[in-house]
Amino acid sequence: MTTETMPSAGAPTSSRPAPAWRHQHILDLDNFGRDEIEAVLDTADSMREILDRRIARVPALRGRTVVNLFYEPSTRTRASFELAGKALGADVISLTAAMSSVQKGESLIDTVRTLRAMRADVIVMRHSSAGAAYLAAEHTDASIINAGDGAHAHPTQALLDLYTMRQHFGDLAGKRVVMVGDISHSRVARSDMWGLTALGARVVVCGPPTLLPRGLRASERPAHAESALPPVTVETDIERAIEGAHIVMALRLQSERQQGGLLPSVGEYARRYQVTAQRLARAHPDHILMHPGPKNEGVEIAADVATGDRSIIEEQVTNGVAVRMALLYLLAGYAPGDVDGGSR
Amino acid sequence: MTTETMPSAGAPTSSRPAPAWRHQHILDLDNFGRDEIEAVLDTADSMREILDRRIARVPALRGRTVVNLFYEPSTRTRASFELAGKALGADVISLTAAMSSVQKGESLIDTVRTLRAMRADVIVMRHSSAGAAYLAAEHTDASIINAGDGAHAHPTQALLDLYTMRQHFGDLAGKRVVMVGDISHSRVARSDMWGLTALGARVVVCGPPTLLPRGLRASERPAHAESALPPVTVETDIERAIEGAHIVMALRLQSERQQGGLLPSVGEYARRYQVTAQRLARAHPDHILMHPGPKNEGVEIAADVATGDRSIIEEQVTNGVAVRMALLYLLAGYAPGDVDGGSR
Amino acid sequence: MTTETMPSAGAPTSSRPAPAWRHQHILDLDNFGRDEIEAVLDTADSMREILDRRIARVPALRGRTVVNLFYEPSTRTRASFELAGKALGADVISLTAAMSSVQKGESLIDTVRTLRAMRADVIVMRHSSAGAAYLAAEHTDASIINAGDGAHAHPTQALLDLYTMRQHFGDLAGKRVVMVGDISHSRVARSDMWGLTALGARVVVCGPPTLLPRGLRASERPAHAESALPPVTVETDIERAIEGAHIVMALRLQSERQQGGLLPSVGEYARRYQVTAQRLARAHPDHILMHPGPKNEGVEIAADVATGDRSIIEEQVTNGVAVRMALLYLLAGYAPGDVDGGSR
Repeated sequence: MTTETMPSAGAPTSSRPAPAWRHQHILDLDNFGRDEIEAVLDTADSMREILDRRIARVPALRGRTVVNLFYEPSTRTRASFELAGKALGADVISLTAAMSSVQKGESLIDTVRTLRAMRADVIVMRHSSAGAAYLAAEHTDASIINAGDGAHAHPTQALLDLYTMRQHFGDLAGKRVVMVGDISHSRVARSDMWGLTALGARVVVCGPPTLLPRGLRASERPAHAESALPPVTVETDIERAIEGAHIVMALRLQSERQQGGLLPSVGEYARRYQVTAQRLARAHPDHILMHPGPKNEGVEIAADVATGDRSIIEEQVTNGVAVRMALLYLLAGYAPGDVDGGSR
Repeated sequence: MTTETMPSAGAPTSSRPAPAWRHQHILDLDNFGRDEIEAVLDTADSMREILDRRIARVPALRGRTVVNLFYEPSTRTRASFELAGKALGADVISLTAAMSSVQKGESLIDTVRTLRAMRADVIVMRHSSAGAAYLAAEHTDASIINAGDGAHAHPTQALLDLYTMRQHFGDLAGKRVVMVGDISHSRVARSDMWGLTALGARVVVCGPPTLLPRGLRASERPAHAESALPPVTVETDIERAIEGAHIVMALRLQSERQQGGLLPSVGEYARRYQVTAQRLARAHPDHILMHPGPKNEGVEIAADVATGDRSIIEEQVTNGVAVRMALLYLLAGYAPGDVDGGSR
Repeated sequence: MTTETMPSAGAPTSSRPAPAWRHQHILDLDNFGRDEIEAVLDTADSMREILDRRIARVPALRGRTVVNLFYEPSTRTRASFELAGKALGADVISLTAAMSSVQKGESLIDTVRTLRAMRADVIVMRHSSAGAAYLAAEHTDASIINAGDGAHAHPTQALLDLYTMRQHFGDLAGKRVVMVGDISHSRVARSDMWGLTALGARVVVCGPPTLLPRGLRASERPAHAESALPPVTVETDIERAIEGAHIVMALRLQSERQQGGLLPSVGEYARRYQVTAQRLARAHPDHILMHPGPKNEGVEIAADVATGDRSIIEEQVTNGVAVRMALLYLLAGYAPGDVDGGSR
């Protein structure tokens, strides 16, 4: 008996009561409670186990359609969703601005409603404007997954970060997580802040003052009073930030920042904020090093540590597929938790 | 027993005699008789029923290859064919000018013959030149589906329009169908004219004189004597055109038209030819409102009626997948009519 | 019992001992022995037989992931790999520079390692720089297939050429193979030279002196002493080159060559080096005519011979799918030779 012939494929067999799952869309993590995040991560555990099989396929989403709708170029996020959908047996089609009429000014809402009329079950959307995924979600009953909206949010990246951290530390409560770099323009950092605070981690953000969000520049104190961000600690000195950190995450420096006048030079940035072996020596002995990719080695991260024994950057990538499988699975109406082993 | 294990999947069980199907290619509707159009629409009925299932997949085209060859950007038509092919179990690959060597001047005939040599069964082609699909069809024994050739023809859009109209009115004989807008440059309008007249509808085309085909500008009389178009009525006054209409179809206004000097301004066009609630009040009480998409709301169609209760624009999109499934099914050699329920 | 339900699908049943297969990557043919090339061609024979079935699919690679990573535009090679992968049941995803973040300067090594972390089994890569596939292969344990690296190598094209020649002549030992055109910039010619000499063919390369590789310009003598190319004969006179040839292969003339000052004019090139019926009259009576495509008819090849009865150019295209199926099959760990008939 094979995967393809199981009608009940994917039914959960977990004996502990499944937490409620109330999300139709994945727009950001600011409306996810601890239980909900853990439901995703538990489901991702099962998916990761499937990924590690010789034939990494289950038919839980057979007959479902996932559309990748990318208004910005992407290699890794698009590929990750495409592989996640296919691993679950969904049909996946990818539409990108470069090859579609979206470049002709077709409206976002019209496009999303059209794809839904074609029976798309899930629309994975990346767009350069903050809030684009929210606008889409208001106008369709397909599930929208925000795969990045401007500098605002990137919740699936945050969930894979949380999953990877949990793999290494178990409970994240009280763990010191330091994000270094261009916090201000990082949708990854913003979504990570929401997820990490929900799980009880202590979040420190570090970067040059010009690259910190406006509400965070008053140093060393919780910022939630002044901004739409959760309470985090701000530190412009990288040595102090990394001190005792369990998790250090370097963020990609966009070269546009220098051109925009926010940085004196890339070299100056690297000298003051690059994550190096010397600086990591101040971190907790069991620390791990993360990066959402793609990396600029020699800029925000030194080449030796990027591929060193504390780096789990490639593990993040693999986990990204598992976490996206989990989200597609949950949005399809399956309950969180273990995926039925009998479905193989 | 599942879909995948049915060897005879998709065999028709209809008891009424299947009309002959003699088309190897779908290039336009000017060579389709009433019986042939109805054979497509009857088959689309079965496909629409499949689309509405929870698992909308049948394996009728397993092992067949459909290639989307798009020399112009497209979101919806390409996605519609990709989903139609996958719903029938075909392998679908998409080649677009932006990502392929067609931009290096590789000849159309060479490309089509090459794809056929790779065992493509069906090549769905969009091209900016009128006649491109015909040229391709002369040089290959693969099936060519014209997904738009310049301003000439778009037969699959016309078939989905006919299917949607038939859903609402049954027999179209004697029904008044009004197309409003840039008739002259609309491949949709041309193919619709052929299909509608074959089914006995009364077709009225309406737009500014500069956007009417040359052979149609002599107003209010059948135009088939002077042009390669079927007999339709021409009306430059939108109020008179809509009077008593059962079906009103607004066509997309390409912004290039104004730049080309054919329109004084988009605002002027909207004032004189926009399909509005006030104008639709003159239509038949049971009228429906259609648009081939993508819409310019506020230009050729008012936003309130575009999403109002007479609009069946999203229904057209869903039906587009069903009609394309039907065409792929018929081109694969299956007989028209009901698809075997046992194939599920 | 159907294809999908066979757990042991694809196991070889050939009774003759399978030659060893030691390649993790396919980078060029300079490290392929005669036995290894024949192992690929024998396996391609089985794949070609599968391609000729009504349902040309076997599930040997179900659950495997093939990624097309194309930094240069391509229609035919990308489509060929996509179809080859799908015919074997693999999941295939295509990433091209036009639609991905590779255009943002993401490093090749980082991209390849990321795709591997996503569980890509095979990465098919085309890149404008010679050696790109080698660089990738050094940094991943995925299998890299070189689908063209600058002017350096294109081993899968060479293998399909060898397969097609063998179909027509059986043993290639002693056969005279003439390649005409821009030898210097042709990755196809280079890889063909390696494969043909391994199989014992006599290779003649012909073209204007400016389009011959530096090490080959000393005419009429083996060139292996001065260059990293196998021993071939150089001939600048096309009539002398074609004399008695069993196989004549015309190479595409890139229009950039004229702009680069290497050619006086395309017309002058065509007059002196176009493969014409008159020139082919000097070839062996049983000769065949080949071209790697896309052709410039009227430039390097006359239109009448390109589609004449000695042309097997479309056969090359079909065989390309079979050869790429064979390579994917072998890289997946299957033994060379016949594919199990029971897997159908």
